[in-house]
Amino acid sequence: MAKRKICTIVASRANYGRVKSLLESVQKHPDLELQLIVGASGLLYRFGQVVNVIERDGFPVNARVYSIVEGENLTTMAKSTGLAIQELATLFENLRPDVVVTVADRFETMGTAVAASYMNICLAHTQGGEVSGSIDESVRHAISKLAHLHFPANQEAADILVRMGEDPARIFVTGCPAIDLAARAPKEIGPEFFARYGGVGPAMDLNRPYLVVLQHPVTTEFGQGIDQINQTLAAVNQAGMQTVWLWPNVDAGSDDISKGLRMFRERNPEAPIHFYRNFTPEDYVTLIANCACLVGNSSSAIREGSFLGTPAVNIGSRQTGRTRGPNVADAGYTAQGIAEAIRAQVAHGPYPSASIYGDGRAGERMAQVLATAEVSIQKQFFLRG
Amino acid sequence: MAKRKICTIVASRANYGRVKSLLESVQKHPDLELQLIVGASGLLYRFGQVVNVIERDGFPVNARVYSIVEGENLTTMAKSTGLAIQELATLFENLRPDVVVTVADRFETMGTAVAASYMNICLAHTQGGEVSGSIDESVRHAISKLAHLHFPANQEAADILVRMGEDPARIFVTGCPAIDLAARAPKEIGPEFFARYGGVGPAMDLNRPYLVVLQHPVTTEFGQGIDQINQTLAAVNQAGMQTVWLWPNVDAGSDDISKGLRMFRERNPEAPIHFYRNFTPEDYVTLIANCACLVGNSSSAIREGSFLGTPAVNIGSRQTGRTRGPNVADAGYTAQGIAEAIRAQVAHGPYPSASIYGDGRAGERMAQVLATAEVSIQKQFFLRG
Amino acid sequence: MAKRKICTIVASRANYGRVKSLLESVQKHPDLELQLIVGASGLLYRFGQVVNVIERDGFPVNARVYSIVEGENLTTMAKSTGLAIQELATLFENLRPDVVVTVADRFETMGTAVAASYMNICLAHTQGGEVSGSIDESVRHAISKLAHLHFPANQEAADILVRMGEDPARIFVTGCPAIDLAARAPKEIGPEFFARYGGVGPAMDLNRPYLVVLQHPVTTEFGQGIDQINQTLAAVNQAGMQTVWLWPNVDAGSDDISKGLRMFRERNPEAPIHFYRNFTPEDYVTLIANCACLVGNSSSAIREGSFLGTPAVNIGSRQTGRTRGPNVADAGYTAQGIAEAIRAQVAHGPYPSASIYGDGRAGERMAQVLATAEVSIQKQFFLRG
Amino acid sequence: MAKRKICTIVASRANYGRVKSLLESVQKHPDLELQLIVGASGLLYRFGQVVNVIERDGFPVNARVYSIVEGENLTTMAKSTGLAIQELATLFENLRPDVVVTVADRFETMGTAVAASYMNICLAHTQGGEVSGSIDESVRHAISKLAHLHFPANQEAADILVRMGEDPARIFVTGCPAIDLAARAPKEIGPEFFARYGGVGPAMDLNRPYLVVLQHPVTTEFGQGIDQINQTLAAVNQAGMQTVWLWPNVDAGSDDISKGLRMFRERNPEAPIHFYRNFTPEDYVTLIANCACLVGNSSSAIREGSFLGTPAVNIGSRQTGRTRGPNVADAGYTAQGIAEAIRAQVAHGPYPSASIYGDGRAGERMAQVLATAEVSIQKQFFLRG
Repeated sequence: MAKRKICTIVASRANYGRVKSLLESVQKHPDLELQLIVGASGLLYRFGQVVNVIERDGFPVNARVYSIVEGENLTTMAKSTGLAIQELATLFENLRPDVVVTVADRFETMGTAVAASYMNICLAHTQGGEVSGSIDESVRHAISKLAHLHFPANQEAADILVRMGEDPARIFVTGCPAIDLAARAPKEIGPEFFARYGGVGPAMDLNRPYLVVLQHPVTTEFGQGIDQINQTLAAVNQAGMQTVWLWPNVDAGSDDISKGLRMFRERNPEAPIHFYRNFTPEDYVTLIANCACLVGNSSSAIREGSFLGTPAVNIGSRQTGRTRGPNVADAGYTAQGIAEAIRAQVAHGPYPSASIYGDGRAGERMAQVLATAEVSIQKQFFLRG
Repeated sequence: MAKRKICTIVASRANYGRVKSLLESVQKHPDLELQLIVGASGLLYRFGQVVNVIERDGFPVNARVYSIVEGENLTTMAKSTGLAIQELATLFENLRPDVVVTVADRFETMGTAVAASYMNICLAHTQGGEVSGSIDESVRHAISKLAHLHFPANQEAADILVRMGEDPARIFVTGCPAIDLAARAPKEIGPEFFARYGGVGPAMDLNRPYLVVLQHPVTTEFGQGIDQINQTLAAVNQAGMQTVWLWPNVDAGSDDISKGLRMFRERNPEAPIHFYRNFTPEDYVTLIANCACLVGNSSSAIREGSFLGTPAVNIGSRQTGRTRGPNVADAGYTAQGIAEAIRAQVAHGPYPSASIYGDGRAGERMAQVLATAEVSIQKQFFLRG
Repeated sequence: MAKRKICTIVASRANYGRVKSLLESVQKHPDLELQLIVGASGLLYRFGQVVNVIERDGFPVNARVYSIVEGENLTTMAKSTGLAIQELATLFENLRPDVVVTVADRFETMGTAVAASYMNICLAHTQGGEVSGSIDESVRHAISKLAHLHFPANQEAADILVRMGEDPARIFVTGCPAIDLAARAPKEIGPEFFARYGGVGPAMDLNRPYLVVLQHPVTTEFGQGIDQINQTLAAVNQAGMQTVWLWPNVDAGSDDISKGLRMFRERNPEAPIHFYRNFTPEDYVTLIANCACLVGNSSSAIREGSFLGTPAVNIGSRQTGRTRGPNVADAGYTAQGIAEAIRAQVAHGPYPSASIYGDGRAGERMAQVLATAEVSIQKQFFLRG
Repeated sequence: MAKRKICTIVASRANYGRVKSLLESVQKHPDLELQLIVGASGLLYRFGQVVNVIERDGFPVNARVYSIVEGENLTTMAKSTGLAIQELATLFENLRPDVVVTVADRFETMGTAVAASYMNICLAHTQGGEVSGSIDESVRHAISKLAHLHFPANQEAADILVRMGEDPARIFVTGCPAIDLAARAPKEIGPEFFARYGGVGPAMDLNRPYLVVLQHPVTTEFGQGIDQINQTLAAVNQAGMQTVWLWPNVDAGSDDISKGLRMFRERNPEAPIHFYRNFTPEDYVTLIANCACLVGNSSSAIREGSFLGTPAVNIGSRQTGRTRGPNVADAGYTAQGIAEAIRAQVAHGPYPSASIYGDGRAGERMAQVLATAEVSIQKQFFLRG
């Protein structure tokens, strides 16, 4: 019997960490064949070119597709989605996958979902049923309504999916593959850690306490990015700790955030902040497993953070409503509030681990479902009994 | 105070009838300015070029956009969606609408919804919360999850929207604008009726009983279109009544349907069937208001048909689950079953009118909401108390 | 040593006949590997789906790409070119060809040329240096200015290329591959000839004299197509001979031509004209090798026609300036003029063969150049000594 | 009589300076109406957002179009061209210009040329007939073969156009609009000069000698950009003079150049080099009119430079073959050679003005031709008598 062809699209550095253990499980599964497309910011130097990490990890890349229309604003985010659909349709036409797996809620994810569902290809979706802010909130649920197989991280998310009219027979609570990597993270960082990464800024000693900051634009608050990042910069600068700062993702408003960071660098060349474009997923999770506090608005503070017990300061509205553990403290867009929250979290130290996003075996569970599930392409709104 | 700019995209002949009364109401409203984009099959000769009807009706067209990638298969349906997003994003960038109105569940509608929602433009959606078959089912609900204002046709649909997590404060049960036209439909057809339309086939006398047939491809059953249409052709041929037949829409599989129709014409030049590409929305509704039976899988059999009391034979899965009145009889994809249902419906004659899709005032209600509603661009899954 | 990867794009039925012998030679050459992309109208049912012929001929297709934006007007011709470039760039990125071969002067050819030349891929071009009417005239020369290897059909064309500033060291007078097929064409047609082709219209006996008509739109005369085709229809109808008529290509204005043909069919169901969407290249050349007269504005009347000695009536401006043999008589867009020219050419009968477009060995010569040529990607306007 | 609509596309900061005086002349001409589209890197912050300068200069922008696919490599350059064609076709469809003016030889220019020529819109082209290196060389000539009106800068270029088969009746030697701005450039720089521009790097006194450096990627040497820019950086660093450095344009390889510049900045924070994204065209020409030496591979060293008498060091192959005055000295890609050439040119001081690219009245001449020329859309290769 022919192996089922499972096609995954990795579109950014964050995507990759949230699907890597699934790629491994698909590659190992006797009844599955992995097809891998890398596109969008996953190919771009400015965003860390995760494609290089993927190839070093031993995953052959079936196709590369440039799909980001430059501008980093709302218009180009829409256009990039459109371009992704066009291109992915051609790639699916030629690769002929049996199932397409799409991750979470980004615009490249939307592009994948639209292309696959219109082409009658079974669409599997991770992170469905989670709640958040930004345009991601709308997009995630829209993708769930297009998807044929759901891999929510927890029961709470699964319940939301059922409420939205998804058939329980298509919903599999697997946990999130991001936790699979978190479960393997070493509890200390070797001295050679940063040898592989250039970045810009002063050297650091990661055996002393350090912050990690990752703040993305909030697309529904487009235009307020510079003010927002300046508050965070002021708070972090005030904290005076050595800091690992990642450049933001490619969402609309990214330019504003980057501009704020570059201006800060010009004016504060002595600040103990080192800026990076990318880490391998393993190094990223190691980094946040060992930091004094994770600051910003990345979902990793809530997702991997809850499992790792990482003290986190979550800023603004981007994660509003997302299920979380005790490790997260909220702050608004004010330097004062952020600084106080950082101080409190650093003082608190690590939290106990919570398994609300999985137990470390999500990838293998998903692969097993992909190998065996039989679903109809035709969906129908599911009305409870 | 500046008028609110309300931008609508008409992408097909069917779209137009389902939004025309809203266009009128927006045009008349003192606080609203109408922006009109015509695209997709709405520009194409093969699909009746509804753009010409629109201009004759006195609606200035702000922009035309060709967005159909030819092929009429699943791949090109996806690609056309992608192209539409790209192009609409540029048009929205330049027209700067305050609200974008998108109709129902077609792929052009999806393109509109993605472009507008990513661009932080308030998205209003009609027909949300209805249930059906084909890919339309998935797409309609996905669009609801992107939309900021909902104009469902009835309470049943509104309830589905709430269940899906939409905020009741954003849901307005207005009825469907298609019923606004149905409510004005004359109860007889003048002899000059077809002077305006060429079409191909023998002449007809519409004061004698006639059938209307409109059967679109079902995208989730792609590849079965020729068999399906051949069954319908055989049944209609067997009925032996004069018949008005509309070419199918541009969905994947349209080519198969058209091929079946053309082969039938070559082989049965004497059959009393006249084929048309398009009618004005008013003429279409007049036509079905006065026919002996409406056959096929168009939602107009259920929507306008329920209001008009038109006997209808609904074939196959395309309308599965859609709320309906007593005027509809179902048939599978068999000539025998279709023929029997036609016979029974013709014998039955007109049904009493049912207002389940509106009372004829949808357009004005929607315009009033568009003029006054204040909604946040940021959505959040609405969890009941 | 790795084989050189030679990538060809077949974008229409006409394209294929003009490159098929080259594909054979590349496939057989020990130092070359063939990559084949089929796109544009080559995938479309309405234009004969030459992709099926290609696969039956034993050429594996590496990728399919839908790139025609529907509309058949000037705007969509431009858009289709843009879409083709976008898609081909992704395919070239993934196929990594050493040389891309592009044929003649169509908009898909332009798309290929732009994509390859911007990507520093050696671009080989056939039919460069020929002169004609329509937009093809501009496009053909523009492509020559992008190409790195030229395969003109004859010395006259080669001289034009040198005058245009192309380096003589990059120009190889090989003849046209279309003549390779013409040289193999049987001098009679078997009775089973049309079994493979459906088409519409009455049966024919090809052992009795017949006409072949092929009239494409002239894009630079867009809007005049219906008038033009009506003149040809009147003339052919007046001739009263059995006629094989091919539907036009996908150029802007194709819709007008098709509309004219369909209206004629509705009004003249008895006319002895049979309409076809496609023939294999071999069958097409056999068909024109044995016809009484080839009518229309296809370059095949001049190209293959000169070799085969086929009496031809060339209508209008589309072939203005193209080097020709004695077999061609010109006519303007008037039924009268066309009818007289047909009468004279039928009366004259076959002409002697002229080798002005090649001797039947173009494909093998081209393959040999492709295997051995060393050219720099950097071009420079060549100024004669 | 309706005014002729003249549509120009400005796609980059360099574009604008080379067409600004024409925009002024069109705007003032009683028989012409100006339509302005700004797209490509002309909208992007990273490339100086020349759209803001354009609007401050009083030119209303009819449409904005994002058309750069991010990646800055050969593949995305091709894709950006394709995207530009698609989008411009829609804009032309809606703006309905009588003539489209396209500037020089960039990929956005190619996109404009393809869209306009396929749409039977008269295409006017500046800088045709010039010779250079990079892909620009091929593209410039290809565009000439698509254009209907030529505005070469000098007789030498006009002669090349005739040789290429262009009709002398369509060729107008007008000079280059870039010289119109150069002719107005003040011969000194006020102290407030840089108040309007931020940039990064130390402050400068432009009344003391300074260098200007502008080095773009050479697309046909893609992959060698870092080595090339490092040689220039070493040479300029060695010169030890205060330096105004512009970031490179968006061509393939731009990323490499930028990376080289950023790494240099990190390592040499004290170097007296100030980096800028953009100047107004007037400020740019003032800047090079008053510098000690213009270094790099911009055509402005040859074009405006010849008129201004600016000592210039031209590096590498990008300008190979371009007609030049005595102000230019060549250097290869070696720090040593560049440093020596800079030294010699600074020592030499200003050269006499040469009018080989125009006399300062190009814009008004072009506008007059645009207002009065009658050309056929149908081109034909012009064979000399």
